[in-house]
Amino acid sequence: MQRIDIYDTTLRDGSQREGISLSVSDKLQIAEKLDELGVGYIEGGWPGSNPKDIEFFRRAKKLGLKNARICAFSSTRRPGVDMEDDLNIQALIDSGTDTVTIFGKSWDFHVRDALKTSLDENLAMIKDTIAYLKSLGREVFFDAEHFFDGYKANPDYALNTLEAAAEGGADVVVLCDTNGGLMPWEMPAILTAVKERVKASLGIHVHDDAGMATANSLLAVREGISQIHGTINGYGERCGNANLCTIIPNLQLKMGIQVVTPEQLSGLTKLSRFIAEVANIAPADHQPYVGFNAFAHKGGIHVDAVSKKPETYEHADPDRVGNQRRILVSELAGRSSISLKTTQNDLKLDKDCPETASVLQRIKEMEHYGYQFEGAEGSFELLVLKMMKAYTPLFKLEGFRLIIEKRENGQLYSEATIKVRVGDKQVHTAAEGNGPVNALDNALRKALEGFYPALKKIKLIDFKVRVIDGVDGTGAQVRVLIQSSDDHKSWGTVGVSPNVIEASWIALVDSLEYGLLCRKLPEFAEAKKVLEKLKDEGVTSLS
Amino acid sequence: MQRIDIYDTTLRDGSQREGISLSVSDKLQIAEKLDELGVGYIEGGWPGSNPKDIEFFRRAKKLGLKNARICAFSSTRRPGVDMEDDLNIQALIDSGTDTVTIFGKSWDFHVRDALKTSLDENLAMIKDTIAYLKSLGREVFFDAEHFFDGYKANPDYALNTLEAAAEGGADVVVLCDTNGGLMPWEMPAILTAVKERVKASLGIHVHDDAGMATANSLLAVREGISQIHGTINGYGERCGNANLCTIIPNLQLKMGIQVVTPEQLSGLTKLSRFIAEVANIAPADHQPYVGFNAFAHKGGIHVDAVSKKPETYEHADPDRVGNQRRILVSELAGRSSISLKTTQNDLKLDKDCPETASVLQRIKEMEHYGYQFEGAEGSFELLVLKMMKAYTPLFKLEGFRLIIEKRENGQLYSEATIKVRVGDKQVHTAAEGNGPVNALDNALRKALEGFYPALKKIKLIDFKVRVIDGVDGTGAQVRVLIQSSDDHKSWGTVGVSPNVIEASWIALVDSLEYGLLCRKLPEFAEAKKVLEKLKDEGVTSLS
Repeated sequence: MQRIDIYDTTLRDGSQREGISLSVSDKLQIAEKLDELGVGYIEGGWPGSNPKDIEFFRRAKKLGLKNARICAFSSTRRPGVDMEDDLNIQALIDSGTDTVTIFGKSWDFHVRDALKTSLDENLAMIKDTIAYLKSLGREVFFDAEHFFDGYKANPDYALNTLEAAAEGGADVVVLCDTNGGLMPWEMPAILTAVKERVKASLGIHVHDDAGMATANSLLAVREGISQIHGTINGYGERCGNANLCTIIPNLQLKMGIQVVTPEQLSGLTKLSRFIAEVANIAPADHQPYVGFNAFAHKGGIHVDAVSKKPETYEHADPDRVGNQRRILVSELAGRSSISLKTTQNDLKLDKDCPETASVLQRIKEMEHYGYQFEGAEGSFELLVLKMMKAYTPLFKLEGFRLIIEKRENGQLYSEATIKVRVGDKQVHTAAEGNGPVNALDNALRKALEGFYPALKKIKLIDFKVRVIDGVDGTGAQVRVLIQSSDDHKSWGTVGVSPNVIEASWIALVDSLEYGLLCRKLPEFAEAKKVLEKLKDEGVTSLS
Repeated sequence: MQRIDIYDTTLRDGSQREGISLSVSDKLQIAEKLDELGVGYIEGGWPGSNPKDIEFFRRAKKLGLKNARICAFSSTRRPGVDMEDDLNIQALIDSGTDTVTIFGKSWDFHVRDALKTSLDENLAMIKDTIAYLKSLGREVFFDAEHFFDGYKANPDYALNTLEAAAEGGADVVVLCDTNGGLMPWEMPAILTAVKERVKASLGIHVHDDAGMATANSLLAVREGISQIHGTINGYGERCGNANLCTIIPNLQLKMGIQVVTPEQLSGLTKLSRFIAEVANIAPADHQPYVGFNAFAHKGGIHVDAVSKKPETYEHADPDRVGNQRRILVSELAGRSSISLKTTQNDLKLDKDCPETASVLQRIKEMEHYGYQFEGAEGSFELLVLKMMKAYTPLFKLEGFRLIIEKRENGQLYSEATIKVRVGDKQVHTAAEGNGPVNALDNALRKALEGFYPALKKIKLIDFKVRVIDGVDGTGAQVRVLIQSSDDHKSWGTVGVSPNVIEASWIALVDSLEYGLLCRKLPEFAEAKKVLEKLKDEGVTSLS
């Protein structure tokens, strides 16, 4: 079987994505997770460019990785400079990794215009740098920057640069589509030309500027390359690098090439979300295999079929990558999608029992009013529990008042007062906020935290408002979606009203109630039990 | 040259994406923009499944589209049902479009397990339905659902379904990769087999579940298909449909196949963002060609090179798709990169005049704060006029106060009081509303209508709220977009604040001011003149 190594460059090329700025401890955490996933190589950074990277390599030595080799990155020596005098190269050596990756120019235009040196000197730079590092006992990979564009401009010279790397002793020569404009049908002829001239193992490193990074990486595998460079979630400059979260499952499940174990593959979704979390980037919900919606079904026909045979509308089994099937409730849905409405936790209602019909009826009324339960599994589950009389609300609202005042100095001031009853106790609180919903949230938490200290763990992380029917201006119906999270999970809730404040209030209350429901509090033991039963057993009756 | 038709299904398959729920007026607006882009076909919906879609087709007849044909979608007749008794088919005919698309099953497994009919009856359903619609004079396309999976399971039967469609008289037979699991190297052999058996024009409709939708669509073009189905921004169920924002530029710029004019292509980025706004989906900043970061450069080496020769690190010229190069390092882009074509109206400011630099600087500050002028041309034009000292605000706000109260009976009550100065007159009004923004709007109109009776013509028609930075819960920055209209036109305005009420207020004031500005009122004659000049002539100086 063809042997393929996965070379991860999330920590180096991936961190070129706008908005990503990883600390050394972020990078160490990510490296450990990549090692668990089973990648062959982890490119940690460019020690010559960044003192943070030097510290990363120092501390990475103590990680005790089981699968991956840590790899340091640098350019070839500068033109006309001795190896011992090149600070980048010396920093690379000081990083102490067994494996190093050197990038050099393969496009004659770049050699002349960016490096401003001769074509021959560039070849010498490539060969000398690699030979020098090999003489120090390193495993050396050569990234042929702009190889494909270079080949199109001057095939002979581009191939010369690869030969120089091979003569220097490069263990793998990596063909880069640095600008990401390569079309998949250009790959086979170029690879054939490379294989005729260059006797070295080959790798592929492509970018996604034309939406072809996945296709190009895998077509290169079919042409015999043995190393794929990419990043988790496709992070990278501009449109990103080849996405390992798509490439690894395609290799294993579509091409039958094992690069990680099946157990490791089933950790991919979790890894993808973990790295998004550490990088502080909202997860791409629609990305193949690992996206939150990658196996989400909305259309009524699809839902009915997928409930009978998943393969009817799924190209792969979500379990294989640790993802889950989700059934979205929408105006297009019939009874079978209610019965299947699986949240992250698989709440199951049998489609033939009478309670399902009444839940469906209620959902339809609420959708007609403007509700939408897609992405609002918290509100959906609370609704089902309430209809089953299996849930008692946390508190009774006796009233609230919000005052928002814009004063002559331009300052805006939001204050909420709120009166609630918890059991037999009445609580009356007031709080300010940087906006009305924030003020309400603060006042409500102040009222409830004495009873439910776990509320401190629950945070609102996103808040969306949509006018549903755009015909009455500000008099139209408003839908608010709130996304919340605690230390375990995240969930959505929804509220609808002609009044944005009331809609926010409804979604806010659900978000706190659902968050508490999912924690191990004695107050919710009964409701929790019903919920677990619905989820775990696919209960056939709701009574 | 090979002729390719673009078939857009954003309004039907695209709206299967989680979170998208388009009103009829949203759909009409989108259809107009797609027509401007120059697509050949716009699939408007499934009249049999949804009353909203029936209304869309009724109103779409009045749009006066220049390039595109509107197309209605439905399934083949049901098993064992006469054409005249099939409600879906009759609803399709009632929609009155010249072009219809019929989907049917090409995978034997689906015929038996989902349709629960015989393989022969399925062939009859396909042929009969198409022949019937052809007899009514329609142009008919056949979507062969699951064709690729069906071909792999039972090639002969899958080809029979295509033949049945061709025999029925289908104008185009469309090969669907419904589950999105097709690998690009599987395409050529399958297409060869299809072309041997099926004498009809072919189309391709693929999904992106394995990250291959772009590659597969374009590889099919190389195999001779003549129609590509896809959606703007790749919206669609699960991982989405083939992304026309990637496919169209690849066709034009990489393959030399013209499907829209160069001018139309240069409107692609704007269209992509417009549709994201209408769908209330955050734009995918890293998508090829049209993403905000598609031509953003971060690495120091890249920036230096790209400033000298863009082709060093860009696979295509961002101007061709109406996008812009962005430099993320150090000080922002210089005056030379100015292009203020961010509004729907293309206000042109010459890059060498000093006012342009100060407008640019101000826009950048506002964008950094969270503003976005895409779809908010009213606010953009007012901003430019204010910076040119060509516009005097209508009134001065001296303060407002909003009280929102939820009483024990559950009733919600919103009251606004507002104090403004118009010229030397102070006006102090109060009004109720069904929500806080409505109350503010009512109080402000009450204060101003005596001075500007034309305000009665101006209506708010849509109101959208987005949290820009989802890390602080309700404490994050909020962007409000308001769409307004009068008897002549409609326009968007924007406001940003941590407080949803203040953001709404800013957008609300702009909406009324801009609405009045565009009417023939003597108060605004001067500002109006400047605006017209900027718009019509591409003025070279702002002084």
